[in-house]
Amino acid sequence: MTRVLGIDVGGTKVAIGLSESDGPEITERVRLEIDTLNGSPPGAHLLERVLATARDLIGSPIAVGFSTCGVIREGRVRLAPNVPGWDGLELPRLLGRAYGGTPVAIDNDVNAAAAAELRWGALRGVSTGVYLNLGTGLAAALVVGGRVVAGAHGAAGEIGYQLVAPGEPAFAEGRAPLEERVSGGGLAGRGSAELGRPVTAATLFGLAGHPAPVRDAEPAERLGAAELVEEMLATLAMSVANLCVALDPERLVVGGGMMGAADRIMPRLVAELRRVVPFPPEVRPARFADDAPLLGAFALARAAAEPHPVRHA
Amino acid sequence: MTRVLGIDVGGTKVAIGLSESDGPEITERVRLEIDTLNGSPPGAHLLERVLATARDLIGSPIAVGFSTCGVIREGRVRLAPNVPGWDGLELPRLLGRAYGGTPVAIDNDVNAAAAAELRWGALRGVSTGVYLNLGTGLAAALVVGGRVVAGAHGAAGEIGYQLVAPGEPAFAEGRAPLEERVSGGGLAGRGSAELGRPVTAATLFGLAGHPAPVRDAEPAERLGAAELVEEMLATLAMSVANLCVALDPERLVVGGGMMGAADRIMPRLVAELRRVVPFPPEVRPARFADDAPLLGAFALARAAAEPHPVRHA
Repeated sequence: MTRVLGIDVGGTKVAIGLSESDGPEITERVRLEIDTLNGSPPGAHLLERVLATARDLIGSPIAVGFSTCGVIREGRVRLAPNVPGWDGLELPRLLGRAYGGTPVAIDNDVNAAAAAELRWGALRGVSTGVYLNLGTGLAAALVVGGRVVAGAHGAAGEIGYQLVAPGEPAFAEGRAPLEERVSGGGLAGRGSAELGRPVTAATLFGLAGHPAPVRDAEPAERLGAAELVEEMLATLAMSVANLCVALDPERLVVGGGMMGAADRIMPRLVAELRRVVPFPPEVRPARFADDAPLLGAFALARAAAEPHPVRHA
Repeated sequence: MTRVLGIDVGGTKVAIGLSESDGPEITERVRLEIDTLNGSPPGAHLLERVLATARDLIGSPIAVGFSTCGVIREGRVRLAPNVPGWDGLELPRLLGRAYGGTPVAIDNDVNAAAAAELRWGALRGVSTGVYLNLGTGLAAALVVGGRVVAGAHGAAGEIGYQLVAPGEPAFAEGRAPLEERVSGGGLAGRGSAELGRPVTAATLFGLAGHPAPVRDAEPAERLGAAELVEEMLATLAMSVANLCVALDPERLVVGGGMMGAADRIMPRLVAELRRVVPFPPEVRPARFADDAPLLGAFALARAAAEPHPVRHA
């Protein structure tokens, strides 16, 4: 048996899965909601629960792939403030202790999703590429030489921290300027403030006329939503075009929950890339949607189990 | 003898050099001014003159390194409008014909300069890094896994084409938005228009008080220059910070003619990287100045002559 274990710790939930073949299939899966785990458990406690569940699911995997929010830096999880006690956790050491001589590979969720797209999906065969995750948050994975670029501190592709305007409040002030403008979470926050009631990014796209105008919406709400969506699309298109100018990828693959508005987002990206980038990349939707980070954990595990494993982070 | 030939075709001049050892030394050099070569010669004619001069300098090099303005794309020079007839030239084929079985490596001038910094200079030992060239033009070289990233079309690092504001005129409209704002040439052009007389970027920095205020300058000129320089620095700092957020380099190396104002530019870059980038890279001036592209051609040649040559472009 060539069974691998995949674990995906996201912002609100954990997916633990078993895969029996080298393909994008989930043989078996367990899901844990983080907020039901005894209130706000420290990260080490959460990990214990996860590993106990994993042991029930699969006793002796040939390899373990772990996808986590945040990044891995000097043996610890960093940039992961949303899961209580997770930031600062010595994840590589704890996993190594739990799994002895079994190959273990860890990477952040977006890099893991890109690994799945590279192995089985829309980035297959690509040497220089970009995977863009438009979800609640915003991040990218850069691909060079057919591999995901880790960066010097495991933080390559964390474009949510990029500036949109010179000198604006940034990482050091606790901000993520680009993510606040163009992610699902950022758009929902700005929309809720603008409209004076809680709205999701999907509602804003609806009010703005996509896929069809919301009936009976107030004209002021429609206008406010349309302006926010337009600003989001213009900023996103600029940032993605600038990233593609810098890397010169052959292909851009876009995934994440915001792809529910793909009809509105993708043509805008394609048009701006054609206008801005000297050699515009091909643009494709991701093959994998919600399951991308867990499938990515499988892809990391498969790579780690190979004769010359590509260890991430 | 391990003599290599290096050739650097820039926007206005050609440098042809001979190097006898694997180090950043130029044993012998000839310089040709492009505008004295019979007016506006077609690119193939210019190349003939260059190769004839090179043959006089060195009969049988063990390898040839060629640094050129523009990029190499599908066997031709592209994005090189400044040298008449150079854009579109089949440089790889023509060099292959001229040098038979001798290893030949070609890359653009900024990537070549980065190769010199990697081999002998400020990028030595760096795995993930950025080389920024602040000269008459603006471009960068990205380093991943200790090698310069070519990109899918040889255009990685050509950040001069990046947008500064959403939707502004861009490559397709014949523009290079970031380069027009922050390069030496761009700053001189904007300053000359603003002040109503031809000024260089160095003059603008002088009027703006660096290294010391220009005596007897009109207050209006000082103010205009100070505003332009401030806008240039803010835009440059934003763009460089955004590039470092995306790549997560361990080191940023800055070279090019604008480094005459390094005292003004470098502290600004360091401060903005600390503020914006989650894991700020170390910032260093380049080791090589004016000779960087020719030394880069030597570095390309040395790499091409090695058992497992790294071919660029």
